Amino acid sequence: MTTANDFAQEHAERFRQELIDFLKIPSISTDADYAAEVRRAAAWLADHMRDIGLSAEVIDTDSHPIVYGEWRNAGPEAPTVLIYGHYDVQPADEADGWDNDPFEPVERDGKIYARGATDDKGQMFTHVKAVESMLKAEGRLPVNVKLLIEGEEESGSGGLTQFVTANPDKLTADVCVISDSSMPDINQPVIIYALRGITAAEIHVSGPAQDLHSGMYGGSVHNPAQALAEIVAQLHNPDGSVAVPGFYDDVRPLSEAERAEIARLPWSEDAWRSITGAPQPWGEPEYSLRERVGARPTLEITGIGGGYTGNGFKAIVPAEARAKILCRLVADQDPARIVEAIKSYVQQIAPPTVHVEVTGSIGAPAVQVDIDNPAMDVARSAYEKGWGSAPVFMREGGSIPIVGVFQQALGVPVVMMGFGLNSDNLHGPNEHFSVEMFHRGINTAIAFLREIAS
Amino acid sequence: MTTANDFAQEHAERFRQELIDFLKIPSISTDADYAAEVRRAAAWLADHMRDIGLSAEVIDTDSHPIVYGEWRNAGPEAPTVLIYGHYDVQPADEADGWDNDPFEPVERDGKIYARGATDDKGQMFTHVKAVESMLKAEGRLPVNVKLLIEGEEESGSGGLTQFVTANPDKLTADVCVISDSSMPDINQPVIIYALRGITAAEIHVSGPAQDLHSGMYGGSVHNPAQALAEIVAQLHNPDGSVAVPGFYDDVRPLSEAERAEIARLPWSEDAWRSITGAPQPWGEPEYSLRERVGARPTLEITGIGGGYTGNGFKAIVPAEARAKILCRLVADQDPARIVEAIKSYVQQIAPPTVHVEVTGSIGAPAVQVDIDNPAMDVARSAYEKGWGSAPVFMREGGSIPIVGVFQQALGVPVVMMGFGLNSDNLHGPNEHFSVEMFHRGINTAIAFLREIAS
Repeated sequence: MTTANDFAQEHAERFRQELIDFLKIPSISTDADYAAEVRRAAAWLADHMRDIGLSAEVIDTDSHPIVYGEWRNAGPEAPTVLIYGHYDVQPADEADGWDNDPFEPVERDGKIYARGATDDKGQMFTHVKAVESMLKAEGRLPVNVKLLIEGEEESGSGGLTQFVTANPDKLTADVCVISDSSMPDINQPVIIYALRGITAAEIHVSGPAQDLHSGMYGGSVHNPAQALAEIVAQLHNPDGSVAVPGFYDDVRPLSEAERAEIARLPWSEDAWRSITGAPQPWGEPEYSLRERVGARPTLEITGIGGGYTGNGFKAIVPAEARAKILCRLVADQDPARIVEAIKSYVQQIAPPTVHVEVTGSIGAPAVQVDIDNPAMDVARSAYEKGWGSAPVFMREGGSIPIVGVFQQALGVPVVMMGFGLNSDNLHGPNEHFSVEMFHRGINTAIAFLREIAS
Repeated sequence: MTTANDFAQEHAERFRQELIDFLKIPSISTDADYAAEVRRAAAWLADHMRDIGLSAEVIDTDSHPIVYGEWRNAGPEAPTVLIYGHYDVQPADEADGWDNDPFEPVERDGKIYARGATDDKGQMFTHVKAVESMLKAEGRLPVNVKLLIEGEEESGSGGLTQFVTANPDKLTADVCVISDSSMPDINQPVIIYALRGITAAEIHVSGPAQDLHSGMYGGSVHNPAQALAEIVAQLHNPDGSVAVPGFYDDVRPLSEAERAEIARLPWSEDAWRSITGAPQPWGEPEYSLRERVGARPTLEITGIGGGYTGNGFKAIVPAEARAKILCRLVADQDPARIVEAIKSYVQQIAPPTVHVEVTGSIGAPAVQVDIDNPAMDVARSAYEKGWGSAPVFMREGGSIPIVGVFQQALGVPVVMMGFGLNSDNLHGPNEHFSVEMFHRGINTAIAFLREIAS
């Protein structure tokens, strides 16, 4: 008899082609201009779920739609697995340094290059293909499954949060599994037990009513691009710590035990250097590199702009300039309080010679998952069988805001078993996903469903 | 007999329509993508010169072409007037706040709105129409004229400088007249006797080899947008003076007499506020507003950019960021020395955690014109007769680099008689030119040619 793993291997080529078709849809959730494409991706995924034997629906929210699929014929005694993922992606523009159109996937050297390849279309799709392989090869699943795939993970998960909070009964499960994270090396899988929170703000500086001729008014007007730089330069202290008063007030201190565990993870300065390409490390000197990105809160300028930055130059005093800020938060920091702290500090340092506005969008707090839950053992075993290596447990610097909501609203243990590589360059140009990891991920997802049933 | 002034009035409508046709050509010289449009504008203007009875040619340079037209039948005894102007324009994008496509001119409330309307297509065209009106109405000009209209005033005048330096004999003249400046009020014309110099630089900060995921690397990498802000914030002192060491070393001090003269010009803080729209004045406290923009050197950030500034947000540490700098210089400052001072200061303050590159493009030194030249009296009289008001003499904050070249290479007195208004918003959105000033300018240009002959 053909096993699900055999089936997955026999249909590897088709699975990859389906993923490529899915990646062609530019489902950018952070830009309203792409709303129709996000909807098209949702419809594609729901159709695909129906094709492989699930019942599926597209559920509207106040923002982008959710795709919900289920197969519940394993019987009331069998456990129920909630599989979460997201089908939306970050913005991507070929001009940012891509070697191909980010929405015309290219397979090269065993990797698929496309926006969303690893984050999260590719990783999420491993579960869809695991379910298909079991259904097609074995006629049934050993567990009930609920697939909850959202379309706005990259833009705050507002609609999903509302849906989960309003419909806990529909989503009842024994365990929730998420593949939206990565490992340092293909032979060193990782299970995440802590995620940072996130919150965003934007500083807008305006001065003259419109761009002014720099020869006629420069020197008499506080240049908004200069004033913005002066404000941004005061957001960090010279040692790399965040200068916003109150920013660290609620941070739960790292225990010595945790610091020792973090120190055991393989992440040398050389590895950091070869992945980032930056000339030398930067940041809070009293914390290690790994601590800075996983266990400490940060404030990043994700974008800055004002005036003319095209070819040549324009002899103006620009009318305005803006900077986008994204903070990663750790346990016990309140996103709303951080936004308020930023707003009040920026207004306090804002000079009277320009207008300064700060808007904030409150994200999600950090979360920490209980390592002792039995589902964690199942996940460990699934990696050993399906991936071929035992995982380590670690903190993750990134954020998956919905995890906190699952914990709170559904009371379900969450297992974060990522199938990506740290060097996949998610969110940047040339994002990619290893074909081998795609297929190992399918086998690991199959193993997880099998193990959780036994 | 019809006078040139009668002719200009009878054909006012056609003159305006011709200017509008000319303004439709997006002859942006600072952006290589528009090179063909610059060339199209040159061809249009040369054809137009031929149509009105001049001989004309398009002269290639290493950069954009020059349009040269002449009429030399006034006889060897008659003086020769060199008319300079430029047909190239600043960049313009409707999205910058224009109420119309900047290259689809709109006439509204007695003004023509289009990029280049006042700077300099409209002002320069007054001379073309003055020449046409005299030729058509009177059959001849009282002087010989040479029209030298360049296509790269907004991008450094490199080709023209080379041409003027190499061909002084072709351009021999008794006086040079330029209309590329403005007045505070339609009834207060101004003759410029000093212009600031100009020089440009660009700071490029890079760090990671590509955009990085802010959750995975933020806090361990010196964010290039932040590092750039930290550098830009150190370019000025808290009192608004430029912090670059050596910047003021060669500045010729303002005499008390000059300061008194500057203080007599009408330019209240209220007027400054209503034109700029900025909340309050800024800049070197020991100098008046008018001194800051006309008699002191400045360093402006004309553009800053890095990371993602579109709709929504992108969770990245950007790979790079850049700022464009434009300096206005006063008498005795050397543009090359200023560029070197900026480069060396920025490298000195650049942190080792990022790569910092500074490129400079050397512009032109400041110039000062002799007020006692007889041509200045002719210009004063031309304004009285053609415009209807007597002009004042003043310093100008802007730069017309070629004036220094005319002085040096041709030894010709330069008369800067502008026909624009300070509020025309040149270089910004909704640049416009008053139709009444266009026609008064034609009459003033006619009066100038008549008076210079007598």
